[in-house]
Amino acid sequence: MKKTVRLGLAQINCTVGDLEGNSEKIISYIQKGREKGVDIISFPEMAITGYPPDDLLLKPGFIRDNMEALNLVARQCTDITAIVGFVDATKAPSPGKGEARGRLAYNAAAVIHNGKIKVVSHKIILPNYGVFDERRYFIAGSKCLVFELDDIIFGVNICEDIWHAEGPTGIQALKGKADLIININASPFHAGKHKERAHVLARRVAESGVAIAYTNLVGGQDELVFDGGSMIFDSSGKIVAGAPLFEEALLVADINLEKEAKQVDRNKGIDEELTISSSLLQGTLKPKKELLEPPLSKELKPLEEIYKALILGTRDYVLKSGFKKTIIGLSGGIDSALTAIIAVDALGADKVLGVAMPSRYSSQGSIDDARLIASNLGIEFSIISIEDIFKTFLSSLEPAFEGYEADVTEENLQARIRGTLLMALSNKFGSMVITTGNKSEMGVGYSTLYGDMAGGFSVLKDVPKTLVYELAELRNEMEGFDIIPRNSITKPPSAELRHEQVDQDSLPPYDVLDTILQEYIENELSINEIVALGYEKATVSQVLKMVDSNEYKRRQAAPGVKITPKAFGRDRRMPIVNKFRR
Amino acid sequence: MKKTVRLGLAQINCTVGDLEGNSEKIISYIQKGREKGVDIISFPEMAITGYPPDDLLLKPGFIRDNMEALNLVARQCTDITAIVGFVDATKAPSPGKGEARGRLAYNAAAVIHNGKIKVVSHKIILPNYGVFDERRYFIAGSKCLVFELDDIIFGVNICEDIWHAEGPTGIQALKGKADLIININASPFHAGKHKERAHVLARRVAESGVAIAYTNLVGGQDELVFDGGSMIFDSSGKIVAGAPLFEEALLVADINLEKEAKQVDRNKGIDEELTISSSLLQGTLKPKKELLEPPLSKELKPLEEIYKALILGTRDYVLKSGFKKTIIGLSGGIDSALTAIIAVDALGADKVLGVAMPSRYSSQGSIDDARLIASNLGIEFSIISIEDIFKTFLSSLEPAFEGYEADVTEENLQARIRGTLLMALSNKFGSMVITTGNKSEMGVGYSTLYGDMAGGFSVLKDVPKTLVYELAELRNEMEGFDIIPRNSITKPPSAELRHEQVDQDSLPPYDVLDTILQEYIENELSINEIVALGYEKATVSQVLKMVDSNEYKRRQAAPGVKITPKAFGRDRRMPIVNKFRR
Repeated sequence: MKKTVRLGLAQINCTVGDLEGNSEKIISYIQKGREKGVDIISFPEMAITGYPPDDLLLKPGFIRDNMEALNLVARQCTDITAIVGFVDATKAPSPGKGEARGRLAYNAAAVIHNGKIKVVSHKIILPNYGVFDERRYFIAGSKCLVFELDDIIFGVNICEDIWHAEGPTGIQALKGKADLIININASPFHAGKHKERAHVLARRVAESGVAIAYTNLVGGQDELVFDGGSMIFDSSGKIVAGAPLFEEALLVADINLEKEAKQVDRNKGIDEELTISSSLLQGTLKPKKELLEPPLSKELKPLEEIYKALILGTRDYVLKSGFKKTIIGLSGGIDSALTAIIAVDALGADKVLGVAMPSRYSSQGSIDDARLIASNLGIEFSIISIEDIFKTFLSSLEPAFEGYEADVTEENLQARIRGTLLMALSNKFGSMVITTGNKSEMGVGYSTLYGDMAGGFSVLKDVPKTLVYELAELRNEMEGFDIIPRNSITKPPSAELRHEQVDQDSLPPYDVLDTILQEYIENELSINEIVALGYEKATVSQVLKMVDSNEYKRRQAAPGVKITPKAFGRDRRMPIVNKFRR
Repeated sequence: MKKTVRLGLAQINCTVGDLEGNSEKIISYIQKGREKGVDIISFPEMAITGYPPDDLLLKPGFIRDNMEALNLVARQCTDITAIVGFVDATKAPSPGKGEARGRLAYNAAAVIHNGKIKVVSHKIILPNYGVFDERRYFIAGSKCLVFELDDIIFGVNICEDIWHAEGPTGIQALKGKADLIININASPFHAGKHKERAHVLARRVAESGVAIAYTNLVGGQDELVFDGGSMIFDSSGKIVAGAPLFEEALLVADINLEKEAKQVDRNKGIDEELTISSSLLQGTLKPKKELLEPPLSKELKPLEEIYKALILGTRDYVLKSGFKKTIIGLSGGIDSALTAIIAVDALGADKVLGVAMPSRYSSQGSIDDARLIASNLGIEFSIISIEDIFKTFLSSLEPAFEGYEADVTEENLQARIRGTLLMALSNKFGSMVITTGNKSEMGVGYSTLYGDMAGGFSVLKDVPKTLVYELAELRNEMEGFDIIPRNSITKPPSAELRHEQVDQDSLPPYDVLDTILQEYIENELSINEIVALGYEKATVSQVLKMVDSNEYKRRQAAPGVKITPKAFGRDRRMPIVNKFRR
């Protein structure tokens, strides 16, 4: 069959800054691709450097070393064509108006052929919203590249480039006569994102009539999880091959590019400032004895997707930070139970230590629940009472506190003693403390800075409390029994920092709270707009005030896994001093 | 005299988000300007909203309310022309390529005349480097505006617009025939920045032959201090009026714009994509009975400039956050001494509580030094021993630590007990804890997370240790005696967390450390480039490794005042997981 190309989409887990490790991995996948008779193998956006390298990109030495690493990869790349994401140094100081200040590079894809870097393609549309800061680092490209290889023509573009009708895809397809677009990505996860991507790609196919091979990064990097899910669309807009989510994979598929003459809108939104450039790659497609039946990945349910993101994010943060073991404070409540089981799923039961730290306010039930969770998970478990330490603090502070009533001070003190104990265990054993707060608490500041917020990673930071319950139920279903004890799920949530305390003394019911938080944080609604949805003004006002006045706490929080369209952290950059209250 | 205009440069201290307070302040300065016979009064960039409002700019309600506030200001603005910085809403969804996603607005200056917003000018060059993220929020303008008022023509542009030869200034001067450019700013401080600005403005005057009135914001906002220092250049390139640094001021000056025909390079670097637009303001300049002798501000020495920035940054962070009082842990060392005196200078001696928290490792000398500092400053002083608490922690941890030697765990434990005590006092008394770490410690992670790093504001975070000494000497000179005790300055620095410990057990001498840190952090040199400057490879390698591996601590640090060209925080955005080591 003429025009049949074997594609390899190498969905690899790169590590930011690990130029050597990333290059070695790329070379090993090139070898794998060759063994499978792949004609063209594609790697994720910035596969050489990992994504996002942030201000490493301001170091000329980093960019130089990344170019060297790419050259090393190129020399290994014979008998196959490879598309490799890297950072392309500018030859001259950054051009254009002053906004380009400091920018040294292009976000680039090298087209490697016969052991040489044949042409370099530059990302044209640079995202600078949400978690992205690409205009801080990169100069935008303006040339749309297409390549002739034997009897096919393919175009290369990068991530955001394919999200827009007026981007390069249409030009490559229509002016450049491309049959196929190879689009490389570092597209981070949030719930439902994989479907959004498929929808966008289908639209591009419909507009331009090309097949699209979409290669995504996989793995965790600080707050972000890249979920993989690489996929290939044929020119009719059908998904013909898909890689799994949240795992490394080499997706191999034979794609026939002989398409019927198709009616496409040749003038739709094309940006006339972009130019087209064509290169001839000397070589032929490999003869195919028989066509491969390409794999299609299994769809995940929305909750499963989120759960897998939390596992991958936790595993990669802990391991890529150089830690092997973790410590979790187990209160007997649902947040710490879910956190512990995620850590076990990420790292193994022998890598998790659970510690209960009861006080005078802890019920026997809580201690029993904590012990049961640990025993269900098969993790090591210790109990360290905070009572003696708490008493000593109170007596040391007695002269200073004379004449003052007990208040939130004494509550925070207990949380900080616990944080200090966990950090002491962390220091002594070289384990990372995983904190257990959820997005609802983080949103309203219902947490103690340097107390329950103390630790290296905050798994549930972007998981609202109502979703914590759903994930706990999911995980119990997966297990076939209540590995997270039923009692931890059903009892009224409490911080147990004073007698008979429950969360709902201070907060609205969590279903109400979570909706208000979502409307305010993700949807940017104003107080009146939220009230108009049917919530009490006093409640909305109280919640919004708590969100705004606790920015200082969130600023000192550990990173966690982004799973919603807007997470706290690099995704939502609010001033600390902020008097906006309407 | 024909062509003599009375300018008022209102260098005001705005608060981010305080639309009502900022508008009231603007109206009061308009009144002051009118009383002084000012023809044109200019306010800082984004005076209505404060700067930088960060992701408040993604809230449609915030932008709407800022427009309302501007309209309120406009109605009060009669018998004077005002240039007011605000955020101009786009009427349609953001145009152009996908990178514009989410952007709702222009960074804008309203030209208000006869109680109406006559024309709105949009910032053309949007900085997106260092501490700036303007491409995250704003769409770039492309129109250069000039205004005719009686017999003068003036152009308006915004901050970064004037930093570039190819920006609007040249077009306004040459194509638009402007005599005067009114440039409004929110330009943050770093050491020497005021001189840089004057240098750039002088270059623009030399290129274009216009006079320039440069109005800057003043005040602290989170990590940034805006230093004011507004100034007016006449068309010969001479500074004819200057406002003080670090204070609110209304700079009033009469400027005669009748200039000699001057040779200017009319084609120098003008960006041909920019267009010019001219508006006629109906009205006349006020008759001047006698010309004002405009004030020139006193120059500050470099160290004085830094010291004043630290005071203003601390004052505004504490007060704008709604706190009145502060708490500082006094160790008897130089860092906490300098921190305490800055807090006293910022807020008054009655607003600062000093607390010494000795342990078994504290020398009597340290306690005496702490007491002496407190008494020199006239602040309240308490001593709370950590010994009993430390012992109770050790005994509670004894079962867990069995078989392990004492190590850094026990050192961190002491620091965390101190942090917890200070936070307890903070909770009880409603005071903000000010932390005392310096940039050198922050750089190499020579500090305890949740210990000495615990607190709301980290004054010296961007002050290297060697500069801490210089500032201490400066402050003692200002006082006329050693208000910071000589002993705190001369003794070898020590954390006193174990017997006979000094900083130089773990770190290179501070002069060496600070140079290496500067080359690595501010100048982005690689290890080999720093070694080539004459430092031992082992030392450089150790320092760089410490910097890289302690990003996780800095991510959880309190904000501090930026005083160098590259501060930790929003200015330097490094990944936490980062395996780049060359």
